[in-house]
Amino acid sequence: MLVECVPNFSEGRRPAVLQALLDAARKPRVQVLGLSADPDHNRAVMTLAGEGPDLVEALLDAARTALQLIDLRDHRGSHPRMGAVDVVPFVPIDETPMAYCVEMAHHLGEQFGSELGLPVYLYERAARSRARVNLARVRQAEFEELAVWMAEPTHRPDYGPAVPHPTGGAVAVGARPPLIAFNAWLSTRDPHVAERVARAVRGSSGGLVGVKALAMKTPSREEHPVQVSMNLVEYRRTSMPMALEMVRREAARYGAQVVRTEVVGFLPLEAVLESARYYLQLTDFSAEQVLERSFWVHRLGEEP
Amino acid sequence: MLVECVPNFSEGRRPAVLQALLDAARKPRVQVLGLSADPDHNRAVMTLAGEGPDLVEALLDAARTALQLIDLRDHRGSHPRMGAVDVVPFVPIDETPMAYCVEMAHHLGEQFGSELGLPVYLYERAARSRARVNLARVRQAEFEELAVWMAEPTHRPDYGPAVPHPTGGAVAVGARPPLIAFNAWLSTRDPHVAERVARAVRGSSGGLVGVKALAMKTPSREEHPVQVSMNLVEYRRTSMPMALEMVRREAARYGAQVVRTEVVGFLPLEAVLESARYYLQLTDFSAEQVLERSFWVHRLGEEP
Repeated sequence: MLVECVPNFSEGRRPAVLQALLDAARKPRVQVLGLSADPDHNRAVMTLAGEGPDLVEALLDAARTALQLIDLRDHRGSHPRMGAVDVVPFVPIDETPMAYCVEMAHHLGEQFGSELGLPVYLYERAARSRARVNLARVRQAEFEELAVWMAEPTHRPDYGPAVPHPTGGAVAVGARPPLIAFNAWLSTRDPHVAERVARAVRGSSGGLVGVKALAMKTPSREEHPVQVSMNLVEYRRTSMPMALEMVRREAARYGAQVVRTEVVGFLPLEAVLESARYYLQLTDFSAEQVLERSFWVHRLGEEP
Repeated sequence: MLVECVPNFSEGRRPAVLQALLDAARKPRVQVLGLSADPDHNRAVMTLAGEGPDLVEALLDAARTALQLIDLRDHRGSHPRMGAVDVVPFVPIDETPMAYCVEMAHHLGEQFGSELGLPVYLYERAARSRARVNLARVRQAEFEELAVWMAEPTHRPDYGPAVPHPTGGAVAVGARPPLIAFNAWLSTRDPHVAERVARAVRGSSGGLVGVKALAMKTPSREEHPVQVSMNLVEYRRTSMPMALEMVRREAARYGAQVVRTEVVGFLPLEAVLESARYYLQLTDFSAEQVLERSFWVHRLGEEP
C-alpha cells in the first residue's frame, strides 16, 4: 500500500529548521524523495513515500517539530498560509486505492488534533462536507485572521480545538490523486497565442475536465519564450496525451506547434504507461510487464 | 546493480522437474518473475532478477539440478538444443552497465566449467571472438552431434572440458540487451501486406538495424488475422516508436493501418519512458521522475 505525502511547511528560509523537519520525517521505512524550499514564499514542500502507519508517524513527528520551531506570529511570505504545517495531502501511488489515503488523512487528522492540539480541516477526497472539498475554500483565512474566521459556526474544524493553535494556526489534511505539472512550449513569441490555447484546453473555460492551464512567459528560453503551463489533476481520466493533443490542435489554429514539453517534479508510473499505450496502440499493456516494477514489487513483498 | 537472467532449460513436460528447477533458483534475494514451459519444444524459459552474486548462486544451483534431472540422451523436442541448461543470457536492467553483465557471464561460465564439468561457450556481448557473437553460430550442433562438432579445434569451449557432458551436453552463457517482443496487427486480411511490411522494417533486408520482423497469421483473431511480429534487439538505439512509425508508414502504402499492438512478456522501464519522451516531446524526462521508481530505488538502497 504505497502512499505519497506532500506536506507543506511555512518555512523556506532557515536551513536549520528545514534540516530539523527532514530529520523528524526520516523513519526506517519512509523515503524522503525531495524537499524544495522557496524563500520568497517562505514555504517548503516535502515529498515522502512509504506505507500508511510509517508515514503517519513521520508526519506526526515532523509536525511536532514544525510547531516547536515555526512561530507564525513572526512569519512573512508571499504564499497564503494558515498554519506552521499548512497542508498535508496523501496521494495514492501504484495500485493503492484512494479510500486508503482518505482513511490515513482521517487518522492523521485525529492525531494532529488530540496529540498536537492543532485544529484540522479535512479537504478534497478526505472532506466530510461538500464545502470543504476545494482547498481554496478551506484555506480562506490567513493565520492573522484565523481566530475570527474559525469563530463562524460553519468553520468548526473536523478535529482538534475550535480555536487556532497560538503559534501554529491550523492545518488542512486531505487526500487527492497525483498531480502532474506538464508544460508545453510553443513555436511562437506571441503570448496571446499561449493564452488562447490555455483557455481552450483548461476545464474551467470549456476544455478538458482534468486540466488546469495558464499561459506563462519563460524569457530565459530566448528562442521559445512562451509556454502553456498545465496541471493534470486527474491523470487517469484526462491523460497527458489527451491534454497534449488538444494543445497541439489549438496551437495549430494559430500556425504554432509544440516545440517541446517538460514534466516538473514527479509523476506516477501509470501516467507514463498510459502515454505509451495511447500512442503505441498498446491496448492490453499492464504495469506488471515492466521488468523493474515486477522485481521491485516482488522484492519489497518479501520484506519482513 | 539490477540484472535479469533468462536461462533456457531442455525440459517442458515434467512438472516435477520444472518445480525442482524453480526451487533450486529461489534464493532470498533473487526474484523468480516467471517460468514458461512449452511441451512441444520440450523447453522452459525462466525469468530471474536480482543482483550479481545472488543470481550466480541461483543459476549454479538450478544448473546442478538440471544436470541431475535432465538426460539429453532421452530428450525429444522441436526446439534445437545442445544442453540440459541450454542458454543463459544476462541482461542489464535499470542503470546497470552491460560490462557488469559480461563480467557475470564470464564468472558463471568459469563456475559451470570447474564445478559442474560443463563445456561453456560465451556468446553475444560476452563472446571472446567474433565467431561466437551470434548465438545461432555457437549452437550449431544438436546434443547428438555435439562430440563431433566440439572436436574441431575452432570449437573448443571457453571454459570447462573439451568434450560434452555425458548427459548435459554444453551451455551457451552470454550477455545481451533486453529484447522486446512487439507485435502489430494490421487492418487487412492479406498476409502479403504483412510480409511486405515486415521485410521493409527488419534490419536484415534493409530496414531498421535493431529490428527483426516476420509476418504472422493469427487466425484466432478473426477480424484482424494478420500481424507484423517484431523483436527489438537494441531498444535504446532502435526504439518502439521508431519501429512502429515505420510499420505504420509501410502499411499505409497498401492502404492498411495498425489496429492494435501488444508487448509479449516483460520490457524495461526505459523503453516505456522513451516511448513517452518520443510522442510527448518530453526532451529531458528522466527515470528519477517516476515516483514509484524513486521510492523503490531508495528503499532497496537501504537494505542491509
